Amino acid sequence: MMNATNTQPPSNDWLDEVRWNSDGLVPVIAQDAESGKVLMFAWMNREALALTADSGEAVYWSRSRSRLWRKGESSGHVQRVRGLRLDCDGDALLLSVEQLGGIACHTGRASCFYSELHAGRWVPVDPVLKSPEEIYG
Amino acid sequence: MMNATNTQPPSNDWLDEVRWNSDGLVPVIAQDAESGKVLMFAWMNREALALTADSGEAVYWSRSRSRLWRKGESSGHVQRVRGLRLDCDGDALLLSVEQLGGIACHTGRASCFYSELHAGRWVPVDPVLKSPEEIYG
Repeated sequence: MMNATNTQPPSNDWLDEVRWNSDGLVPVIAQDAESGKVLMFAWMNREALALTADSGEAVYWSRSRSRLWRKGESSGHVQRVRGLRLDCDGDALLLSVEQLGGIACHTGRASCFYSELHAGRWVPVDPVLKSPEEIYG
Repeated sequence: MMNATNTQPPSNDWLDEVRWNSDGLVPVIAQDAESGKVLMFAWMNREALALTADSGEAVYWSRSRSRLWRKGESSGHVQRVRGLRLDCDGDALLLSVEQLGGIACHTGRASCFYSELHAGRWVPVDPVLKSPEEIYG
């Protein structure tokens, strides 16, 4: 029989330590575990974060569609989670991921941050690795 | 005399291409230009972004203090901007920076993302490089 004073199984206290915003969301940065490239920025609610930690694959909250969004569910570009970090004031998460297919962006680029400011203009500087038609067609 | 059909000086159209949220803010990720380490997550309003681009040093909007916040104004830990990127849907920015002092976090750590999830607990895994008393005292 388990002694009640023994170490208990992990609780969900870690989820309570996240400072969810007034919409119940937290901003999330996904970074490639190998290259260090910042791949995308998205949001999670409590359920998405719990599912991400349980499954080891990134699950976000889609604000535009108001539903859970298993990254890669239509593209196959799943993100396998290697590490999960919280910032000093508890209101932002950093996901270290293995990006399947090497493509995080719906435009077919490695990263969503492909436009760089040059001389007062946003210039796309990263190549399209696979056309969206090929990804989603 | 300048011909009106000549190329004009850069306009502020690039600021209009940012999809500011309902509070007039955009989320910003600061990444170390050399190491690739994600240093911090913060917010900018239009003025902060314009000042950042003009000065070449990161200026954020402090939501807690409701004022512009020149990163490093009290700590000296200024962020020199090497590059500025916008994501595919225009609602997040990625700043590539040279972090003066090698410390971005007010706790004296290199990065604000120093707590990692291990066995259901957030564990501080990065060292304090300089005590806050030493930084702000």
